[in-house]
Amino acid sequence: MGSAPSPPSTELSAYGQRLASAAPIPWNPQPFALDFRYGELAGSDFPTLAWRRALANAVAKRPSRLRYGDPRGLPELRAALQGYLWRGRGLRCEIDDILVVNGSQQGFDLCTRLLLDPGDRVVIEDPGYNLARQAFLTAGAELSPQPVDREGMQTATLPPARLAFVTPSHQLPLGSILSAPRRQELLAWAARHGAAIIEDDYDAEYRHGVGPVPPLRSLDQTGRVIYLGTVSKTLSPTLRLGYLVLPPALREVFARAKRMVDRHTPELEQAALAELITSGAYERHVRRIRRRNGERRAALLKALRERLGERVSIVGTDAGLHVLAWINGLPQAREAELTERAAAASLGLYGVSGLYDRPDDFERRAGLVIGYAALDEAQIAAGIARLDGLLRELGA
Amino acid sequence: MGSAPSPPSTELSAYGQRLASAAPIPWNPQPFALDFRYGELAGSDFPTLAWRRALANAVAKRPSRLRYGDPRGLPELRAALQGYLWRGRGLRCEIDDILVVNGSQQGFDLCTRLLLDPGDRVVIEDPGYNLARQAFLTAGAELSPQPVDREGMQTATLPPARLAFVTPSHQLPLGSILSAPRRQELLAWAARHGAAIIEDDYDAEYRHGVGPVPPLRSLDQTGRVIYLGTVSKTLSPTLRLGYLVLPPALREVFARAKRMVDRHTPELEQAALAELITSGAYERHVRRIRRRNGERRAALLKALRERLGERVSIVGTDAGLHVLAWINGLPQAREAELTERAAAASLGLYGVSGLYDRPDDFERRAGLVIGYAALDEAQIAAGIARLDGLLRELGA
Repeated sequence: MGSAPSPPSTELSAYGQRLASAAPIPWNPQPFALDFRYGELAGSDFPTLAWRRALANAVAKRPSRLRYGDPRGLPELRAALQGYLWRGRGLRCEIDDILVVNGSQQGFDLCTRLLLDPGDRVVIEDPGYNLARQAFLTAGAELSPQPVDREGMQTATLPPARLAFVTPSHQLPLGSILSAPRRQELLAWAARHGAAIIEDDYDAEYRHGVGPVPPLRSLDQTGRVIYLGTVSKTLSPTLRLGYLVLPPALREVFARAKRMVDRHTPELEQAALAELITSGAYERHVRRIRRRNGERRAALLKALRERLGERVSIVGTDAGLHVLAWINGLPQAREAELTERAAAASLGLYGVSGLYDRPDDFERRAGLVIGYAALDEAQIAAGIARLDGLLRELGA
Repeated sequence: MGSAPSPPSTELSAYGQRLASAAPIPWNPQPFALDFRYGELAGSDFPTLAWRRALANAVAKRPSRLRYGDPRGLPELRAALQGYLWRGRGLRCEIDDILVVNGSQQGFDLCTRLLLDPGDRVVIEDPGYNLARQAFLTAGAELSPQPVDREGMQTATLPPARLAFVTPSHQLPLGSILSAPRRQELLAWAARHGAAIIEDDYDAEYRHGVGPVPPLRSLDQTGRVIYLGTVSKTLSPTLRLGYLVLPPALREVFARAKRMVDRHTPELEQAALAELITSGAYERHVRRIRRRNGERRAALLKALRERLGERVSIVGTDAGLHVLAWINGLPQAREAELTERAAAASLGLYGVSGLYDRPDDFERRAGLVIGYAALDEAQIAAGIARLDGLLRELGA
């Protein structure tokens, strides 16, 4: 008697298979002692008292019936965001254009599900944000990476596509601002091809000595732009609160999708954010941490200048919470050597090459995406001093 | 000169098109004055003080760096859930089997994405939970609805499929408990076909005078069962906190998917729930509301018996937070007439026919899914008195 055949294993969907076979994007459970990872904030900057009070009020105001909420988000939060977007970003929209989501990542995900089929083309910035890139790849999209220069993503020769993903206010990671002619070119392209544009306005609150740039969404006449905002860079990435501003034609299907994927964003946190915005505490907080991050940025630029001088070229300093440092004496092929040596010395440094579509371009210099919002001035100076030492070890 | 062609509109993906063309599942912004909607809880049952204290502690304990968390959930919450599942449900699992999600709906959604391709077959209970059903349909699945009787879903003639969705502890909506032979039959079927089983244990905390039933997951020898738990029926559906217990082979891809769809569940609420469970406050709360809901259930059964007597047949009373009332003198074709008249009189009544795969079965009687957890005894009595009046108007 032969042995019974072993039962078939649980098969993954095509989506699951793409996800399982993708190169993992690393996630460190513990930060390094000195860590320049971009996207992290200092715990001491969090408005603890205001948030605790707002949460406590939200708990106290709980309604007589606990029931599933509006998939689009709490009406009071959407009204508060409408006002904030107008005051803070010069963006006019209707309350019903706004969909509250669990941070930007859920925004990307809803866009990929509702707008992309496997095989569809997506225009992305090169270099660009790796988790958005991976969301599109996992959806089965064909990527069409576009070079980025001082005017942002190049838009002259965009191929037909279903979707474009851009960071017009502050290109991630190079820091450039998409120029006015390119904005028009991008919008005309989208109208021509029936494409949608995701505008990721991830750190628009931070402008250093330059005026605010209105979002691409403000120029959009044909309902192509999906604007994506977040509090991950002003309050905390752990809250998972973000919002989409949708073209009218997409409101209904996005609300249905939000309900289908998780009903709605947790209501206590939504109510707390609504209270913070409505009371003015949120914008006071933003002004305070903008100033605080300006101090950190000044300390970083000073340390880079004094320690490293001409050995690095710094770009993207006008906005946001990171700068990009090109290492002039080190080829890109040795970038990993630098970041690995840093890690061994408990220094968190992050190479830019992982954000390129082709990481292995041997024309490029090594580059570091330096986030500074989670460190104080002494830590920033100490970290750059260590970087100096490492570069000397590497002969750069 | 002819006019320029109008630009193409933004096209939806196949998923988006299925979602846009699906019949909407209604959502009422406002409850009725007396509302028997299932899945809603009384605000007065929420442990306001304990939750506020736990949240305040979580805010106060915020780390020195605010950074994206573990996609699987906070380690302390997963450890607390492991203990709770063992004490409360007799379910042994490893901490790494647990994935924290934003309520059950996100659990369904992750399962559909990772395990279903368009055209795949899914076994569902008939009648069954409409939002799970819609999640499968939107994924493009072919449904294979199986009749439910007093022993739960019939399992003798299941077709090959990729996935089965079941509520073994308390069938939604009929209330039966899946019998031991059928549990074995279902597990053998899954092993034979390489299918996964989603076990939705949505209201397992509520047993009225009957012993607890161990979950299907406890019997699973071959890694087929994905267990799904939630606090939506014990704390609040607005918190959006749930958890999957995964077979080892699926842990990694589900964690990747969770990161891709929204990074992780909000951490303050995770920390608050961990504290509630670890301190014992959660289980004290569950005992308290189990007792309280037992009182409501007794009031409902008494009102149904005294007011309606033989005119209704009540099933599914042993567990959960709802009962099913078949209206003996009213054919299913008149169910909508009853619920619409009720709505006009500010009474929320919910017909069972919408939970069937074929809503228009003229052999069936009208039936009501009566949820009672959000009402007090006087409201329950008043609501059933109104139902009595409506049935008399309809001649039933």
